[in-house]
Amino acid sequence: MSLVVVGSVALDSVETPFGKREAALGGSATYFSTSASFFGPVRLVGVVGEDFPVEHERFLASRGVDLLGLARHKGETFQWKGRYEYDLNTAHTLDTRLNVFADFRPELPPAWREPDMLFLGNIDPDLQRSVVDQVRRPRLVAADTMNFWISGKRQSLLETLKRVDLLFVNDAEARQLAGESNVVKAARAILTMGPQALVVKRGEHGALYFSGNEVFAAVAYPLPSAFDPTGAGDSFAGGFMGYLARTGRQDGPTMRKAIVVGTVLASFVVEEFSLDRFRTLTPHEIRGRYAEIRRLTHFDELEPDGLA
Amino acid sequence: MSLVVVGSVALDSVETPFGKREAALGGSATYFSTSASFFGPVRLVGVVGEDFPVEHERFLASRGVDLLGLARHKGETFQWKGRYEYDLNTAHTLDTRLNVFADFRPELPPAWREPDMLFLGNIDPDLQRSVVDQVRRPRLVAADTMNFWISGKRQSLLETLKRVDLLFVNDAEARQLAGESNVVKAARAILTMGPQALVVKRGEHGALYFSGNEVFAAVAYPLPSAFDPTGAGDSFAGGFMGYLARTGRQDGPTMRKAIVVGTVLASFVVEEFSLDRFRTLTPHEIRGRYAEIRRLTHFDELEPDGLA
Repeated sequence: MSLVVVGSVALDSVETPFGKREAALGGSATYFSTSASFFGPVRLVGVVGEDFPVEHERFLASRGVDLLGLARHKGETFQWKGRYEYDLNTAHTLDTRLNVFADFRPELPPAWREPDMLFLGNIDPDLQRSVVDQVRRPRLVAADTMNFWISGKRQSLLETLKRVDLLFVNDAEARQLAGESNVVKAARAILTMGPQALVVKRGEHGALYFSGNEVFAAVAYPLPSAFDPTGAGDSFAGGFMGYLARTGRQDGPTMRKAIVVGTVLASFVVEEFSLDRFRTLTPHEIRGRYAEIRRLTHFDELEPDGLA
Repeated sequence: MSLVVVGSVALDSVETPFGKREAALGGSATYFSTSASFFGPVRLVGVVGEDFPVEHERFLASRGVDLLGLARHKGETFQWKGRYEYDLNTAHTLDTRLNVFADFRPELPPAWREPDMLFLGNIDPDLQRSVVDQVRRPRLVAADTMNFWISGKRQSLLETLKRVDLLFVNDAEARQLAGESNVVKAARAILTMGPQALVVKRGEHGALYFSGNEVFAAVAYPLPSAFDPTGAGDSFAGGFMGYLARTGRQDGPTMRKAIVVGTVLASFVVEEFSLDRFRTLTPHEIRGRYAEIRRLTHFDELEPDGLA
């Protein structure tokens, strides 16, 4: 099935306790599409400036990411500069230069206006709706958002949510969006806002999936070598959506597998700076880690005489 | 198999966003033993003051907790006063009055000195060793500890760890003990300090188990009704050890089931103040939640054509 992603393409400068990197390939659409590319072709809608290195375009194209929707505008590419604390859980934004991304008005190529699946990266909810307006109703519309829009453009975000089937947020965002401190209650509240399904990402603690009465709880892969958490959430969503697009199914067991696939892709991308780990990652490694997560989460039924 | 716990018995005054309670039954040995009692008899070693209500003793005895090792000394019972923030993850200690617990020198009744399993609650590591000195080597010695001892009595704690088979800590404590920010690396370091096995408790995010090359990752039950997190860790350990004592086994699959049993007991105790939820809890409910965790963590193998 065809899969379109709309989001940012950026040059990231990142400091972690383990080192630093200047102007590396980043952005939500970049991480998403590269992650999804392990499962099939992806179409990327975004914007870059004149300074965007052609080698990055070549890399994305080599991964099967179709760049027909990537506009190149006069000016500089979106730049993000951040620093992570020693436990890698806390990020500090040191500088954000939107540059050409400030005037981003996503426009889908005419040939892309009947996508089977659409992922709206974390951009202004007005723009997210403008994308939905451009397409014939896809089989699945998924979206990401963040605290900035939840507090700053709440009404617009609520309008967008009415047109979204599946929402990805982290647990703090879920609590903030629902105004409810308990994450299970928050999830139930969000499922009344439009989406039929919700993925709550919890970083190194895994993810929760809610849809109707269905709940799925996934652990994250216990990683001894976390290095740069940038892009983990978008890589999660990319693996998840790429897998769904490949299978063509959206039933409960498939959604569960997609969550685990997402955690696998996220666990790999944080092993190196930028999305460098994806440059060497093989399908065999993805399969291997998926199988490993099955082994390390397995436990048997409780025996009949297990209690007093 | 016989199971002995040594730890605190306290009267807790707790404020949560949902209400407050004065001088309720608390303490590590109390939570541990009541939780373990769902799986068989437990022997408790601790101390209380003259003010300790006889109704609490009656309750513990009614649960099958043997109080032969509970000393009653002149003075007041250990009192702890705390407040939880709205997300229940952050606890503030408002007041600690050790009272008779300040002079606690655990002494096991002569008939209890050949326990099959021994749990050393979170007390001074000197005292933990004094308990091990009193018994013939049990089949399993497990211990809990905390940041206070890790920083304040590190050498003594390291001596204790050499005599412990299984250690329970939370993730911050694991990092602190090992001086390593990555929890997987921290776990590997701790397994060189004496314990053959380690449980890292992560509260609402579940638990990790490490032993040799074995890793088990357990989710917590996604609870819509968390109310008072006091005693969750000790209830986890009590369910875990009670289940092991019942089965008489310590193989890998049994340890995994014990972890899940522990998360089940912890998930129940936080539903009400103090250990009130254990007053009404039934084996049927424990079984039910265990089965529910199996359902909500299940996912299938990846199909051969799941990747590009």
